[in-house]
Amino acid sequence: MEQIELNHCTSPAMANNTSVDELDSPIDRYERIGHIQEEEDDDLIDITDDDNSKSEINFRDSTQGLVEPLEDIPIDTGKYDDFHTIDWLKDIQKDRQRHKRIHRDRDKSPLNKLKAAHDAWSGWLVVFLVGVGAGTCAGIIDIGASWMTDLKLGVCPQAFYLNREQCCWAENDTDQLKFNDKGCSKWHTWAELFNILGDNAGSYIINYLFYVLWGFGLATLAVSLVRAFAPYACGSGIPEIKTILSGFIIRGYLGKWTLLIKSITMMLAVSAGLSLGKEGPLVHVACCCGNIFSYLFPKYGKNEAKKREVLSAASAAGVSVAFGAPVGGVLFSLEEVSYYFPMKTLWRSFFCALVAAFVLRTINPFGTDHLVMFYVEYDTPWFFFELVPFLLLGVFGGLYGAFFIKMNLKWCKYRKTSKLGKFPVVEVITLALITAIISYPNPYTRMSSSQLIELLFNDCGPEDNFKLCNYKHNYTLMLHTGNVAASPAGPGVYESLWLLLLALIFKGVITVFTFGIKVPAGLFIPSMAVGACAGRLLGIGMEQAVYFNNDWGIFEDLCKPSTPCVNPGLYAMVGAAAALGGVTRMTVSLVVIMFELTGGLQYIVPLMVAVMTAKWVGDAFGREGIYDGHIYLNGYPYLDSKREFVHSTIASDVMRPRRADPPLSVITQEGMTVEELENLTTESSYNAYPMVVSKESQRLSGLVQRKDLTIALANARKFQEEVVSQSQVFFSNHVPRYSLPGQPSPLKLTKILDQSPFQVTDQTPMETVVEMFRKLGLRTCLVTHNGRLLGIITKKDVLRHWAMLKNQDPDSIMFH
Amino acid sequence: MEQIELNHCTSPAMANNTSVDELDSPIDRYERIGHIQEEEDDDLIDITDDDNSKSEINFRDSTQGLVEPLEDIPIDTGKYDDFHTIDWLKDIQKDRQRHKRIHRDRDKSPLNKLKAAHDAWSGWLVVFLVGVGAGTCAGIIDIGASWMTDLKLGVCPQAFYLNREQCCWAENDTDQLKFNDKGCSKWHTWAELFNILGDNAGSYIINYLFYVLWGFGLATLAVSLVRAFAPYACGSGIPEIKTILSGFIIRGYLGKWTLLIKSITMMLAVSAGLSLGKEGPLVHVACCCGNIFSYLFPKYGKNEAKKREVLSAASAAGVSVAFGAPVGGVLFSLEEVSYYFPMKTLWRSFFCALVAAFVLRTINPFGTDHLVMFYVEYDTPWFFFELVPFLLLGVFGGLYGAFFIKMNLKWCKYRKTSKLGKFPVVEVITLALITAIISYPNPYTRMSSSQLIELLFNDCGPEDNFKLCNYKHNYTLMLHTGNVAASPAGPGVYESLWLLLLALIFKGVITVFTFGIKVPAGLFIPSMAVGACAGRLLGIGMEQAVYFNNDWGIFEDLCKPSTPCVNPGLYAMVGAAAALGGVTRMTVSLVVIMFELTGGLQYIVPLMVAVMTAKWVGDAFGREGIYDGHIYLNGYPYLDSKREFVHSTIASDVMRPRRADPPLSVITQEGMTVEELENLTTESSYNAYPMVVSKESQRLSGLVQRKDLTIALANARKFQEEVVSQSQVFFSNHVPRYSLPGQPSPLKLTKILDQSPFQVTDQTPMETVVEMFRKLGLRTCLVTHNGRLLGIITKKDVLRHWAMLKNQDPDSIMFH
Repeated sequence: MEQIELNHCTSPAMANNTSVDELDSPIDRYERIGHIQEEEDDDLIDITDDDNSKSEINFRDSTQGLVEPLEDIPIDTGKYDDFHTIDWLKDIQKDRQRHKRIHRDRDKSPLNKLKAAHDAWSGWLVVFLVGVGAGTCAGIIDIGASWMTDLKLGVCPQAFYLNREQCCWAENDTDQLKFNDKGCSKWHTWAELFNILGDNAGSYIINYLFYVLWGFGLATLAVSLVRAFAPYACGSGIPEIKTILSGFIIRGYLGKWTLLIKSITMMLAVSAGLSLGKEGPLVHVACCCGNIFSYLFPKYGKNEAKKREVLSAASAAGVSVAFGAPVGGVLFSLEEVSYYFPMKTLWRSFFCALVAAFVLRTINPFGTDHLVMFYVEYDTPWFFFELVPFLLLGVFGGLYGAFFIKMNLKWCKYRKTSKLGKFPVVEVITLALITAIISYPNPYTRMSSSQLIELLFNDCGPEDNFKLCNYKHNYTLMLHTGNVAASPAGPGVYESLWLLLLALIFKGVITVFTFGIKVPAGLFIPSMAVGACAGRLLGIGMEQAVYFNNDWGIFEDLCKPSTPCVNPGLYAMVGAAAALGGVTRMTVSLVVIMFELTGGLQYIVPLMVAVMTAKWVGDAFGREGIYDGHIYLNGYPYLDSKREFVHSTIASDVMRPRRADPPLSVITQEGMTVEELENLTTESSYNAYPMVVSKESQRLSGLVQRKDLTIALANARKFQEEVVSQSQVFFSNHVPRYSLPGQPSPLKLTKILDQSPFQVTDQTPMETVVEMFRKLGLRTCLVTHNGRLLGIITKKDVLRHWAMLKNQDPDSIMFH
Repeated sequence: MEQIELNHCTSPAMANNTSVDELDSPIDRYERIGHIQEEEDDDLIDITDDDNSKSEINFRDSTQGLVEPLEDIPIDTGKYDDFHTIDWLKDIQKDRQRHKRIHRDRDKSPLNKLKAAHDAWSGWLVVFLVGVGAGTCAGIIDIGASWMTDLKLGVCPQAFYLNREQCCWAENDTDQLKFNDKGCSKWHTWAELFNILGDNAGSYIINYLFYVLWGFGLATLAVSLVRAFAPYACGSGIPEIKTILSGFIIRGYLGKWTLLIKSITMMLAVSAGLSLGKEGPLVHVACCCGNIFSYLFPKYGKNEAKKREVLSAASAAGVSVAFGAPVGGVLFSLEEVSYYFPMKTLWRSFFCALVAAFVLRTINPFGTDHLVMFYVEYDTPWFFFELVPFLLLGVFGGLYGAFFIKMNLKWCKYRKTSKLGKFPVVEVITLALITAIISYPNPYTRMSSSQLIELLFNDCGPEDNFKLCNYKHNYTLMLHTGNVAASPAGPGVYESLWLLLLALIFKGVITVFTFGIKVPAGLFIPSMAVGACAGRLLGIGMEQAVYFNNDWGIFEDLCKPSTPCVNPGLYAMVGAAAALGGVTRMTVSLVVIMFELTGGLQYIVPLMVAVMTAKWVGDAFGREGIYDGHIYLNGYPYLDSKREFVHSTIASDVMRPRRADPPLSVITQEGMTVEELENLTTESSYNAYPMVVSKESQRLSGLVQRKDLTIALANARKFQEEVVSQSQVFFSNHVPRYSLPGQPSPLKLTKILDQSPFQVTDQTPMETVVEMFRKLGLRTCLVTHNGRLLGIITKKDVLRHWAMLKNQDPDSIMFH
């Protein structure tokens, strides 16, 4: 179980316990290495991955009677500490070396051939497994959530484990049942179960009470499970996954406990009626599957950069199963989540997303044989003048997105800094109670958000008898013409308008307070619900306006019998896309997801118009989407590849040491003693030490990782008796062949020296440096002038500098 | 009109005229600068884009009575020479500076505000215009090609400008007409026109003759136009566009003449009946639109890196209009064509692709109101056991792809090296004649390839009366059950099987010789036709096998009356995707294109299986697709981002100078005279000169572009009388304040010095260097050891080294 928690899910008091403010190192506060980990001491004499087969350990060569300098004890440099940045290039290089070795050894024996074949197909195998895992998890979660959601309203007494739809299966049309909380003869509301059928008010109160109590109970259980077993399971997880994919280590965030607890509490939280969805968390669950399965293949499990390829594919699978949109999932992974996305990952993500969708379809949790969540059957055309209302929906989406992001970030900041943050359980329970109490009276908030969206997306058929479809149909005419004609709205529709408006306001406001609480919570579904309400409202308005004015030139005889009419369901769909677009600022992937929902190309232009407008309007109020907002709020070390660096600073403005700082701790190529180096590693907490040819020339010759140096020195002390405190350490090959009499034998440590550190000149524009950090995935970069070492820049220095230029507190960029 | 031609389209004799073998520079033969261009001399005193506003030109400061060193005459460094590599980072940096300047000046005046607004939206405006342009071009080409194709078979005497479908519009069902070369009463075959109706053999011969003659005439016209006006218009253009997008300059390749001639000759070549398609060339045409429209906006027109963003969007629009698949187009641009694809480009590509599709739909060239080319109406399910034949189709596709690539590359190599290459016109005409003569007798080759594909993709309805649909239908039963039941094949189907097999072989072979001739030629359609033939053959086989064995367990009572059956049209679709996948090695984008053709998710798994199998099988025979093959064949300087560099060489193995070479030409920071520098630029043809602090220390301090140096020196000579041959040139700020009496006044040239060249150490693994070149878009990279300059690596050095490691001739990598 993890002890260190992410700030996103943690109260300030808890965060302080693990903060490291006392270590104010110029390099990286969060990249410090506190101690050599025990497990690494055990590995010391293992041959590491990037070890050349030719190098052999000769502890002492006594043929000449002289002590020889020790050649390179191999060191396990493959592991990163928790909350550290990974070095993409080094990891990928390591993997290529591994690949080369396997390739080279292939012909040596049949076993090696088998190994090579296994290595070649393991990339596909792992994404296949991840797809199966994600699909299965999604299926179980969908079934569980739908059962528990129905449990709030009633029960199937003969078989309590069935949800309402399954319980009523044998009865007549289940479609009509879906948007109705009346039971069928087999399924009873709680009031019916206790036989208080006669008294209408009494049964209403009983049902209300059960609804609130279940909501309270499920929410309490959810938050308790999260607090007790997997604190990382809270939230949507997407900001953290973005950070992890950008090359950061958060141990346990994608572990098996998180997977288990998140899956369970997701069902509980959704069923509790809280205004949250399970689509974002499904991405987290899929990534957990990705992480867990990658450990079956050392190629991925032991290489953080390679593992992120699997995680990219997993996040595609997550969206694929959340919406039944494999192509949309891949684009979501590409557009929103992933950082490093080579072509190979594109193919595998696509495969993974397809497998996941296929598995989910086989499990068939919705019982509809449709892969997609909100299947839309209509195929009616849209008209050119409708682009105006679609544009308005886009504006609404953008405004709502800006409002939501601003308010939610403010509330989350307040939660972090005030006493509220200390009582996360109380917060969740209170919110669940408030939500349940306000939700029940309004049928559109009483049903789950996804049911609401499905209802609003759908077209009204003549046989639909719920209030939203209460049109004054002329059935004689309909029978005559054979198609559903437009009709004036009945009183039920007008009542629905008011209820939808209330639902819109309620959902819009409560979601602000809900996103960020300590249970798994996505905002895809709540945002879509808000947008769908707005869209449907506008759609009904347009429909009636056109119906009553179909002699106007612009409406060209629409909405008459036997002519097509404005479809309010389409407006709901466009509105949902716009609101989601405003909140997340997704574009292409969102349009493709919505396009896969409907399966037709004809609505792509309305969706596009609304989504792009939502993005532009939203961007006018603040450029960051909700996920980026949470990343900055929590100070995750995330170097956004979408934001452009627009300032004209140069490398020497950013590098450490600054003018007032003490000079850089450097190592010289030769001449330093073991004791001096040991003092260096204990006195300073830098993550790496640049190496210079000599103190005088300051010419850069390499970089030594602190971790490697500490281990190498400890190793040498342990295994080589002749190495004493005064032994000179050589990082070059110019080691004296024989140690002079009276002098301690020298120590050679060329192997831990990185002879190819990245370097830029002090005049390099920061734009270029930022590009290098982003595209090459650097961890550190050295700054030189005319070949002389001046300073060092880490990823965090870049982020801090950026924050400073944006008038933010540079110290907020860190991981506490 | 361009004088220099691409090798792809050029005979060796012509290529030799422009080859530069005599200049054997160690840096880049094709990156040489022959002379200072006249137009650049005129621009000399313009203020360049990246000029700081504070720097003013003071030619002489006479307040002190002393000659001061001249400060920085600005130089236009924004232009690249033809056949040069661009420097992505520098270009993007330049654009950001421009952006910053506009942003800074925004509040100064309303005009500036307007300028800033124009700058902000011009990115969207340009892709909008490109979309409109690409859609319009595609519409015109589609209409023209369909008219000319029909002209081969007959004419509409009352209105010769109508194609057969439009001519017969008023007649009965045009759908039946489509796959038939019989006319309607208004449209006449040539034989009918000349009233030789009675004699069947005679009319056949007349029609045959006209068919061959038209083919001959159209092909002759096409090849003549290409040769005379726009040699760059030949081929599919995709290999060259890939090269251009990877950061290479080929002037005129995307010019207005190429656009015009390619559009016209595309129609001609397709109508001539040659085995080629217009889908690949449409990408070229769209990119021409992109290039032309980008000149309306200096932001894009004057910045090669930014222009490539527009070109990426344009290539998405090209595929979008070619297949009516906007999402597929974006993925094609991402997967296959583009090199540098930031998120902003993704959104704009999508927008561009949508606009293009919308415009094409408005033009409605197919007269079907469907956006897509091969609209498929069926919605029948597929069965699990069918994955086996789909897999087989994938294997076929992979094998065909491997065969095609190997044979085509061999033939193209032969064309380049033999006498054949000297007679491109004769080659095209001969091929057109052969194709026409062999095509006519077989109805499946007589119709155009796209008609064939449409025919094969379609399901057989009961009323379809052409041979392929000649089933022994039981009409009584059909009327009874109300749906199309499976039936045994009739003699027409069996005859079709043979004809399809012949068509498959003919198209498969003739395309090998056709792709690469000197007319616009895409291979999407021919490859799909081959695959569709194979698929349909297998599909009919499966259908009959299942029909006659529907009591087998595995077939579970399929193909009985009122049960669904195997759909041969689906097999044709899967086969087409597999063959195209084998040839181009596209995966995701191909599946999405095919998925957009059908508009349903249900066939995504069969398509996926076939396409992935085709890729794997094809990769077993050679990893490169046809486009990459042509890139290597022609030696384009293309650094493939998909190929992994798997060798363990280091930077010092690749850098120039090699051991036997003369030492690197360097410039020292101070102390060199104007004459020495002038000699350097005239004697050597390097593209850039590294600058060192002093000859002794060899410490790297910067990089000077040859072009800048030449212009700066010429400028100084021209405008500053006191600059003489013996004047010392200072690239640092340590210029003596007063020139000593008797010594010539010094010249200061700090401005042309690039103080932040990219540098790596000599020990850096080449994998890392390759990544830097790819991801940062470098042009040159300097190699140092302990701060001392050792050598230089250019993009071409990397490509040469790679070729050498792959046992290819390193000298093949160049642009002659």
